[in-house]
Amino acid sequence: MIIVLKKNTNPEEVQKLIADIESMGNIKANTIVGEQSNVIGLVGDTTRLNEDDIAANEIVESVKRVQEPYKMANRKFHPDDTVIEVPSVNGPVRIGGDRFQIIAGPCSVESAEQITEVAKAVKQSGANLLRGGAFKPRTSPYAFQGLHSQGIRLLLKAKEETGLPIVTEIMSPAHLPLFEEVDVIQVGARNMQNFELLKELGSVKKPILLKRGLANTLEELLMSAEYIMASGNPNVILCERGIRTFETATRNTLDLSAIPMLKRASHLPVIVDPSHACGLAWMVEPMAKAAAAVGADGLIIEVHNNPQKALCDGKQSITPAAFDSLVRTVRPFVELNGKTL
Amino acid sequence: MIIVLKKNTNPEEVQKLIADIESMGNIKANTIVGEQSNVIGLVGDTTRLNEDDIAANEIVESVKRVQEPYKMANRKFHPDDTVIEVPSVNGPVRIGGDRFQIIAGPCSVESAEQITEVAKAVKQSGANLLRGGAFKPRTSPYAFQGLHSQGIRLLLKAKEETGLPIVTEIMSPAHLPLFEEVDVIQVGARNMQNFELLKELGSVKKPILLKRGLANTLEELLMSAEYIMASGNPNVILCERGIRTFETATRNTLDLSAIPMLKRASHLPVIVDPSHACGLAWMVEPMAKAAAAVGADGLIIEVHNNPQKALCDGKQSITPAAFDSLVRTVRPFVELNGKTL
Amino acid sequence: MIIVLKKNTNPEEVQKLIADIESMGNIKANTIVGEQSNVIGLVGDTTRLNEDDIAANEIVESVKRVQEPYKMANRKFHPDDTVIEVPSVNGPVRIGGDRFQIIAGPCSVESAEQITEVAKAVKQSGANLLRGGAFKPRTSPYAFQGLHSQGIRLLLKAKEETGLPIVTEIMSPAHLPLFEEVDVIQVGARNMQNFELLKELGSVKKPILLKRGLANTLEELLMSAEYIMASGNPNVILCERGIRTFETATRNTLDLSAIPMLKRASHLPVIVDPSHACGLAWMVEPMAKAAAAVGADGLIIEVHNNPQKALCDGKQSITPAAFDSLVRTVRPFVELNGKTL
Amino acid sequence: MIIVLKKNTNPEEVQKLIADIESMGNIKANTIVGEQSNVIGLVGDTTRLNEDDIAANEIVESVKRVQEPYKMANRKFHPDDTVIEVPSVNGPVRIGGDRFQIIAGPCSVESAEQITEVAKAVKQSGANLLRGGAFKPRTSPYAFQGLHSQGIRLLLKAKEETGLPIVTEIMSPAHLPLFEEVDVIQVGARNMQNFELLKELGSVKKPILLKRGLANTLEELLMSAEYIMASGNPNVILCERGIRTFETATRNTLDLSAIPMLKRASHLPVIVDPSHACGLAWMVEPMAKAAAAVGADGLIIEVHNNPQKALCDGKQSITPAAFDSLVRTVRPFVELNGKTL
Repeated sequence: MIIVLKKNTNPEEVQKLIADIESMGNIKANTIVGEQSNVIGLVGDTTRLNEDDIAANEIVESVKRVQEPYKMANRKFHPDDTVIEVPSVNGPVRIGGDRFQIIAGPCSVESAEQITEVAKAVKQSGANLLRGGAFKPRTSPYAFQGLHSQGIRLLLKAKEETGLPIVTEIMSPAHLPLFEEVDVIQVGARNMQNFELLKELGSVKKPILLKRGLANTLEELLMSAEYIMASGNPNVILCERGIRTFETATRNTLDLSAIPMLKRASHLPVIVDPSHACGLAWMVEPMAKAAAAVGADGLIIEVHNNPQKALCDGKQSITPAAFDSLVRTVRPFVELNGKTL
Repeated sequence: MIIVLKKNTNPEEVQKLIADIESMGNIKANTIVGEQSNVIGLVGDTTRLNEDDIAANEIVESVKRVQEPYKMANRKFHPDDTVIEVPSVNGPVRIGGDRFQIIAGPCSVESAEQITEVAKAVKQSGANLLRGGAFKPRTSPYAFQGLHSQGIRLLLKAKEETGLPIVTEIMSPAHLPLFEEVDVIQVGARNMQNFELLKELGSVKKPILLKRGLANTLEELLMSAEYIMASGNPNVILCERGIRTFETATRNTLDLSAIPMLKRASHLPVIVDPSHACGLAWMVEPMAKAAAAVGADGLIIEVHNNPQKALCDGKQSITPAAFDSLVRTVRPFVELNGKTL
Repeated sequence: MIIVLKKNTNPEEVQKLIADIESMGNIKANTIVGEQSNVIGLVGDTTRLNEDDIAANEIVESVKRVQEPYKMANRKFHPDDTVIEVPSVNGPVRIGGDRFQIIAGPCSVESAEQITEVAKAVKQSGANLLRGGAFKPRTSPYAFQGLHSQGIRLLLKAKEETGLPIVTEIMSPAHLPLFEEVDVIQVGARNMQNFELLKELGSVKKPILLKRGLANTLEELLMSAEYIMASGNPNVILCERGIRTFETATRNTLDLSAIPMLKRASHLPVIVDPSHACGLAWMVEPMAKAAAAVGADGLIIEVHNNPQKALCDGKQSITPAAFDSLVRTVRPFVELNGKTL
Repeated sequence: MIIVLKKNTNPEEVQKLIADIESMGNIKANTIVGEQSNVIGLVGDTTRLNEDDIAANEIVESVKRVQEPYKMANRKFHPDDTVIEVPSVNGPVRIGGDRFQIIAGPCSVESAEQITEVAKAVKQSGANLLRGGAFKPRTSPYAFQGLHSQGIRLLLKAKEETGLPIVTEIMSPAHLPLFEEVDVIQVGARNMQNFELLKELGSVKKPILLKRGLANTLEELLMSAEYIMASGNPNVILCERGIRTFETATRNTLDLSAIPMLKRASHLPVIVDPSHACGLAWMVEPMAKAAAAVGADGLIIEVHNNPQKALCDGKQSITPAAFDSLVRTVRPFVELNGKTL
C-alpha cells in the first residue's frame, strides 16, 4: 500500500501515523521524501487495512493499494484452476478447468409439466444442469414472486426424472432449510452484497453460483466470493450477467472483458448469463458464441416451452428448439478454445 | 400502457393478445391502425401488468408504461405530504412536511464513551435523531463488521442519556428481534432490493429509512418503498445517498435532482446523506447546503469525535465542532424554503 | 410516435396540438381516450419531429418514438449488407458482407522505419489495411500530439512499399486537404458528435470509419452515420471501441452486444477495436476472438514494434509477433461464422 | 508519480527504466524495496509524463499520479479566484470572485422579435448576459440546426438594444471570423474534447465558456481548460451541465459536487446549467437554488417567450415570468454565501 502525504507535514505526525499502522500487524513502512509530497510504502500483509480509513488521516493526501484485498479467491496464492464438482446420478458434473457447462431452464418454475418438459428438452440438447426460479426477486411487489417451496419440490421432481442437478436462487438465509436437496445455490445480482446471506452460505458445503451485481466492480465481486470462502465454503462459481450503463438498447451491458480479467485474477470458474444481460431472446445466441470464444467456463440460459406465456422474463427466454440450435452453434467455438461441452 | 405492434401482424393474433390482457382484470384495450405499425392503448388498472412479459409476445415491437407502477407511494393517490412521527421522551420528532430534521452520529458504534459523547454533542448542535452502525455492511470480510447486539445496547444507552431516538441499519430479517427498541430502522443502499428484508419490514410498525441503491433508478426506489408499504408499514423515509457513475473524484455522485423528482412523484419524506455520497469530510457542508436549498426534508450526517481513529469511514466523518458549524450554516438555507430546523 | 396527454386536458388545446403537428408534413394523428390519460398516435413520416419539442407542450405527459429517427442507415429501407470497397494496388479491399478485415498498425506514426516495419509485418500476418495516427487527440496539451502532415507522408510511404491502403484519424475539417491520398478517414470517439466535421465528410467520397463515442448510445452512433450519409457519402464503417462505465479494471467496457444490435438495425459494416476498449495488451486477443464470434466485420488493432517505447498508448499495443499469433488464433472463429479473413 | 513494479523484476531493467524516465527532464527517482513488490517514487515535474506510457513497460505493475496533470488551471499555482471581465456598455460584467452572474436566453435564436423580447425581459429580471444559439449541435441531421450567421446578427441587434453582452456556441474553428463581436464564446459538451477547436480558442482573447462533456471527469474538464490556457487564453469559465448516468427520470444527472471540487482544484469560475442537465422546465428553479447554495459563480438558463413553440429544447425552457420569479427566489440563497447577484 502506498500512502501519499500532504505537503509540509509535521514529521512527528508522520511518525505517529507510521507507528499506528505498524502496530496493526506484520507491516513495515518505508518513506520517500519528494519535492511536492512525501510517500510511505507499506510492505507486508495489508489485507486488513482499509484505504479510506488511512485516507481519513489529516496528513494523508491519497492512498493506493498495491496488493489485491482478496486472498482465498486470488490466483496468486492458488495458481491452478478450481474445478467444482456437482454430484449427480450420472457421475459428477465438473465446472471449471477444460469443461464448458451449460445450465438451462425457465426463469420461474410454473408447473410440474412445464419444468419437466423443459428439463427433458435441455438435457437432450446438451445441458448438464437445470435452472429454475422458485424464489423470484421482482422489482414490483405486485408481480409474480415464484412458487417458493412448491417450486423447489417441482425442481426436485424434474431432477428425479432427468438426473440433472438443479440450480436455484436463494433470497434469504431463513430459506436455507428448503435448499437441502438443491445442488447449486444461486445468489442473484441484487444480493451480491447481502453479506449476511454470503456468510450463511459459507457454512453450506454446496457450490454457490454468485452473480455480479448490476453496479459492482470485478474487485467487489471477488470480495463477495471471499466472504463465502472465508466463511468456510471454497466452492464458488462466478457469473457475469451484465452491468448497468447509460445504454438502453439492451437491458444491461454484458461485460465480456470481465471473463479474461476474472480468470487472470482468480482461480474460480466463470460463467456467463447472456439472457439476463441483454434481455432479448434473439441476442442470446450471438452473445453465447462470444462468451464461449472469450474463454468462459459455461453459460446459464433461460429456456421456456412457451415464452409468450412465461410468468416472468419471457422477453429473453428462448424455446427448447432455439436452445438446441444454440448448443450446436456454440459447441465448435467452445472446442476452438480447447474445452469440451 | 401503450403496446406498439410489429408491422403486418395477423389480426387474429392481435385479438388473442387483447383477450389475454383483458382477462387479467379491469383493463380495456383500444387499437390505432398506423402505416408503419399498429398500437394498442390499455386503459384501467395496469399495475399488475409487466411490460417485459407483454413484450415477450412475438407480435409486439415495444411497450410503454403510462401510469406509474407504484400506488401507495404515489402522490397522485395521496396528494398531501406524509409526516412521519418518531416518538421520543421530548415529544414526537416529525419528519416531512415543513420540518427539516438532522440525523447525526458515527458510522459505527465503537464504545459507550464514543457514542454517548457524540450523541450529546450532536444533540447540543441541533440534531434530533442519533445514528450509529451496529451491523456494518463492509466490502471486505476482513474489515470491522460492527459491534452487533452490543452496538445496539450502546445506542440505547446513549438514547437514555440524551433522549434522542436512534436510527440504525438492519442487514438480515433474522436480526429483527434485536431492533425492538430501535426507533428508526435503516435499510442500506446494498439492501434496497433485498425484497425478503423489505417484506419483513412491512410487518413492523416503526419508521423505515430506505436508502437508494448505488445503481437504482428513482422508480425502483419507489417500488422498494411500495414493497414495505404493501406489506403493511406506511412509514417510509426515502434517502438519496449518491449513485455510481464514471466520475472518480468523489466516492459516488450525489443526485440532488432526485429530491424534487421524488417529492413530485411521492408523498413520502426525502432526506439526503452527503457523507456517504461524496466520501470526503470537507465536502459535507457545501452539499448539505445544496440539499437544504433543493427542498430535502432533512440530512443524515456522519459525525465522529475522532475521525482519524474511526473504525470505519473516517474519511467522510466530520468532528462535532464541524457539525456544530454546519448546522448553523445550513439553518438559514432551510428557512429560506419555509421549513424549520 | 405516441403522445401521452395529461389528465383532464382541454379538448380545444388537444385539437390545436394535433393541427400543429399535422401541419408539419405527411403525418396523421389518431386519438385514444383513456381513464387516466388520453393518447395520440401519429402515423406517417415522423423523422423530422423531435420528441422533446412535442413534450414541451403543457398538455403532454410524455412522448414515445416508434419509428427509428434514422433512414439512410436503417436496414428497414436497405435490407442487404453494405459492402464498402477500399481501392488498393492489389485490387479492392472489401469491408462488410462475408469478409472479415483486420486493420492494424501503431497508435502514432513515429518514424519512417517504425511505420514501414510495422506495415510489412502486419501485412505478412494478414492485415489488409494499415492504421497509424498522424493527428492524435490527447487529454493533455503537454502530451505528444502526432507528426501531423509528416505523419501522413510517412503513412503514404509505407503504403507505397506494402500496397496496404491507409486509415488515419482526422480532427478538424481544416485538415481535409492533407487527407487527399488517405484511403479511409477515421472519426475518433471524441469527435463522434462533432457535427460540423461529419457534414464535411459527407462531401468526401472516401470510406469513413466512425467510432462510437465513450458515452453515446447506439442510436446516437447511427444518427452520426446518418449525418455523413445525408450529406452525400454513403460509405460509413461503424466501430465499437468501448464505453465509459463505473468499472475501472479495464480502460473502458467493450460492449459486444452492440455488434448484433447494430447489424440488425443497420446495413453498415461494423468493426471492433479491442485495443482502445480494454487498454491492456494481454486482453486484445481474447476480446478479438469474442468480436469475431459475435459477428463483427473486422478488427482494428494497435501493433507497435516496440510497445515500451511507443510515444502513445504503448500499454495496449501488441508486438508484431503477438499480432501474428492473434490472426492465426482468430481466423477459425471468423470462419465458424461463415466469413473469410 | 508512483510506479509499482512487478515481483522479481530484473534490477538491470529497473535501472534502465529509471534512466529513461530521468532523461525526460527535471525528474528524480527513488526506490522502495518491498516483499510483494518494489516501488519507484518520482519527484520533480512529471506533467509531461503519461501514466499509461510508463505502464506499457513490462516490469511495471501499475502507476499512480500524485501531482495533478494541469498547471495553469491549478489553484496550487494560482491561489486567488480568477475574475473574468466581460466588457459591456454599462461597465464590465465580472464572473467569479464574489459575484454571481446569470446568463439567460433562448436555446436557439429564431427571429429578431423573439431574441429581443427575451433579452429585454431577462435583463429586467436581473440577467447580465444574453445567451442564444446560432449554431446548434443536434443529434439528428434532420433537426433545426440554427440560423448561423443570421443568428449571430440577431444576437448583436439584441445586444445593441439592451446592452447585454452575448454568449453563443461555436462548433468549428472555421466559424471563428463570425464570432468577432461575440462577447463570450461557448464550447458545448460534445466539443469539450475537440482539441483542435480548443487550441484555436487559445489564440482568441475573449472569455471561453467551457461545458463539461457528458461522460468527462472533472480532471478531463480541467485538462481541456488547460488546452485553451496553454494556447494563450487564460479566460476560461467552467460549466457543469449534467453527466450521463443510468438514471432516466432526468435527461442527465446534474453533478453539483463538481462545484466545490472544481473550485478547490482550480481558480477558474464555475457556473451551472440546470436547464440542460435536467431537461425539465419545472426542475430548473430548485436546481438553481441548489447551485447557488453549493457555491457556484453563476447560472446559465434557457428562457423562451413561447416554450411550446420553441424550435429546440422547449421542454426545458422557462418563460420570462418564471425566470423573473426564479431570480427573486435564488437571490437570497446567493447572498447567504456572501455573493451578490
